[in-house]
Amino acid sequence: MAAKQYIEQHKDKFLQELLDLLRIPSVSADPKFKEDVIKAADFVRESLIQAGVDHTEIFTTAGYPVVYGEKIIDPAAPTVLIYGHYDVQPADPYELWESPPFEPVIKNTDIHPEGAIFARGSADDKGQIYMHVKAFEAMMAENELPCNIKFMIEGEEEVGSENLEVFIRENKEKLKADVILVSDTSMISLDNPSVTVGLRGLAYMLVEVTGANRDLHSGTFGGSVANPINVLCRMIASLQDENKHVTIPGFYDKVEELSAEYRRKLNQAPFSEDEFKQKLDIKDVEGEAGFTTLERIGIRPTLDVNGIWGGYIGEGAKTVLPSKAFAKISMRLVPHQDHREIAELFQKHFESIAPQSVKVKVNAHHGAQPAVVPTNSPGYRAAEEAIKEVFGKKAIPTREGGSIPITSLFQQELGLDPILLGFGLDTDAIHSPNEHFGLKNYFKGIETIVSFFKHFKNQTGE
Amino acid sequence: MAAKQYIEQHKDKFLQELLDLLRIPSVSADPKFKEDVIKAADFVRESLIQAGVDHTEIFTTAGYPVVYGEKIIDPAAPTVLIYGHYDVQPADPYELWESPPFEPVIKNTDIHPEGAIFARGSADDKGQIYMHVKAFEAMMAENELPCNIKFMIEGEEEVGSENLEVFIRENKEKLKADVILVSDTSMISLDNPSVTVGLRGLAYMLVEVTGANRDLHSGTFGGSVANPINVLCRMIASLQDENKHVTIPGFYDKVEELSAEYRRKLNQAPFSEDEFKQKLDIKDVEGEAGFTTLERIGIRPTLDVNGIWGGYIGEGAKTVLPSKAFAKISMRLVPHQDHREIAELFQKHFESIAPQSVKVKVNAHHGAQPAVVPTNSPGYRAAEEAIKEVFGKKAIPTREGGSIPITSLFQQELGLDPILLGFGLDTDAIHSPNEHFGLKNYFKGIETIVSFFKHFKNQTGE
Repeated sequence: MAAKQYIEQHKDKFLQELLDLLRIPSVSADPKFKEDVIKAADFVRESLIQAGVDHTEIFTTAGYPVVYGEKIIDPAAPTVLIYGHYDVQPADPYELWESPPFEPVIKNTDIHPEGAIFARGSADDKGQIYMHVKAFEAMMAENELPCNIKFMIEGEEEVGSENLEVFIRENKEKLKADVILVSDTSMISLDNPSVTVGLRGLAYMLVEVTGANRDLHSGTFGGSVANPINVLCRMIASLQDENKHVTIPGFYDKVEELSAEYRRKLNQAPFSEDEFKQKLDIKDVEGEAGFTTLERIGIRPTLDVNGIWGGYIGEGAKTVLPSKAFAKISMRLVPHQDHREIAELFQKHFESIAPQSVKVKVNAHHGAQPAVVPTNSPGYRAAEEAIKEVFGKKAIPTREGGSIPITSLFQQELGLDPILLGFGLDTDAIHSPNEHFGLKNYFKGIETIVSFFKHFKNQTGE
Repeated sequence: MAAKQYIEQHKDKFLQELLDLLRIPSVSADPKFKEDVIKAADFVRESLIQAGVDHTEIFTTAGYPVVYGEKIIDPAAPTVLIYGHYDVQPADPYELWESPPFEPVIKNTDIHPEGAIFARGSADDKGQIYMHVKAFEAMMAENELPCNIKFMIEGEEEVGSENLEVFIRENKEKLKADVILVSDTSMISLDNPSVTVGLRGLAYMLVEVTGANRDLHSGTFGGSVANPINVLCRMIASLQDENKHVTIPGFYDKVEELSAEYRRKLNQAPFSEDEFKQKLDIKDVEGEAGFTTLERIGIRPTLDVNGIWGGYIGEGAKTVLPSKAFAKISMRLVPHQDHREIAELFQKHFESIAPQSVKVKVNAHHGAQPAVVPTNSPGYRAAEEAIKEVFGKKAIPTREGGSIPITSLFQQELGLDPILLGFGLDTDAIHSPNEHFGLKNYFKGIETIVSFFKHFKNQTGE
């Protein structure tokens, strides 16, 4: 395969170009980065043109644009639709980064002895979308592209992909394909390559608790008026019982109880709880009673506070009895739970448990449906073959705790099961300070994608 | 009394000078205002010189300086020591101020139809210390000062007065006096003038809860690892039971159960709960079961979260499972509770309820002992007489919920019960956005202080 050689010969170019993309702080959650998000979209489009698409478009939406590109080699050939996102998570807290989040550096780590790229977005998802662009470039350069290819790279994945929904609904014909290939997940390790076959959904809520109509002096009023922080803490604490079961009525109604056999298989994945605890520097894990750590992540819904604030949070002391307290609370959902329904149940319950002494506001910020991917499709088999070819091992099917909001929409609107072929690792610190992506993962990923195209073409037959 | 006329004739000067002092953002809690805090000390010293002290000093401490000034008219005359503070609370949240906190403006309000000064520190405590400086100036100008006077104006009251303790211990001789007069409290209203005879103490704690050693992705790890925000909320919620009793073992051990008679009297103070709720725009009060609102504020200890933060608190959504969560928690204490002992009980308890899945750090930030002032002293009687003379009414003795950390130290180290003759109102929004101080309160205060000196001289006999 000439494409493989092309990759080998252009490693430095492939790396430098990715670093340029990583230098653009395309944080979709924060309006102050607006221009940079647009810049990242243009960068991706330019890369697609240079790699050899015959047509690209930037589709404006109510939010950030969708970058589209295609190369049709033969209307009769199978078509692979690539999905990814050029936006990134906010980088704060900045002070915990060992190097600035948007000035990528290469450093060796225990897990990445051959080097890893440290930068926000390196693994999630710029590094992973760029693998696709470069795999495409290599196949084009060596005239080895066996399928039609379409790219749909969006800029709002980290804020809920709301406008991508609209885009997909309005462009079903254009997006017609035989498979969607997505690299926005992780594998167990380079020694244990895996393909994600399940993703949790997400319901992300904002809550606001208001006591008095203004901040009060905690001496003059303390003890006689509800403190919205104390109340919010009580309310949040009550959302889980002592077994860490979520107490929202109806929350578990649609959660499937998986078979003992399924759970046994799930727990066979290589995983050491001691190592897990050691890496995170925790004495004990914590989660829903009656489930293992792998089960808690893979098959059980959760409720986590992602942010909380209220009162005086500056240096020193202020004896304030604040007027308001806030929290961002998200629930990870498992198949059959509907994020809209869960958001409603949450809101109803949260309002119902508020004492008379406060007012509460509850808003659903964004959501994602949970997804399960069948393992008997041509796409899945092509992914298995590609991994076998590049890694020399059979791919382990895994359920991942994270959510890709758009996955279930692909199923509903395009009738396509996405193939979740990710090359990051759980230790890559995505959404955290010091996010990184292994160089070996990057280049192996490019190779695997090239191989996927070959096998997908074979799987779908001539 | 010529001094009274002097006050009347110099109202505009007295106001303009105070506004200048209020323009200095002397926030002691925040190091970025360091130079301004020093500037405020210099301003106060300069004002004392112009008012006629024969001696002033700026005592440097490990923190901010203490401004000292004295006028000895006759070693045999009684001596009044004035205590106050030139530092102010932080002004944030800035966005809730209707005018900038350090650009004072005069506006009329329902409660202050003759105008009030809106600025951080206007009531707490710059406006109130300046009443003393101006009362002194008036008595000096008209040759009517009947007692020796000493000023001790500090710059760390809002952060715990730690260095004032040292200063007092080292300067007992210099501070020798017959009474300490403090205007750093409030009265019920101009129609119901009151003198504070009880103050709650304070134990202010900082807590930190750490889960994993880094921020994690809430999808990849959520449900399997302790979320320090969820844990902190549980821990805080558990610090009070359903009756809002504090659950820290030993917390109430030294709390005096006051007699039915005392409570009956306390509840006779003019107070309308409906009006209270209406002003704060709350449907219901909230506090310890079995006590009225006045009792909850006056005679019962409390536990309030003054600030909480953790995770992502920016705009939009971030699905982070944070490494750390923090809270500032303070307890208001009543007579016989010792703030150091309570801080220890808190720490021990908080550590004991932390689950294995997290680490906690607990630090006592600062504290203040609760205080009770006897009502049969010459100083108290002089305050009563002065209020009668200026307001035409008998002063109502009140217990206030707030704390002046140094009060109990005056009693221990100097053997003096402070007279807490404050002229602010509970509605002045001290420690809150839009703090203000009534112009009428300011000028009536100056008059009352002049009158106090005359009556104190009479009370202590010739």
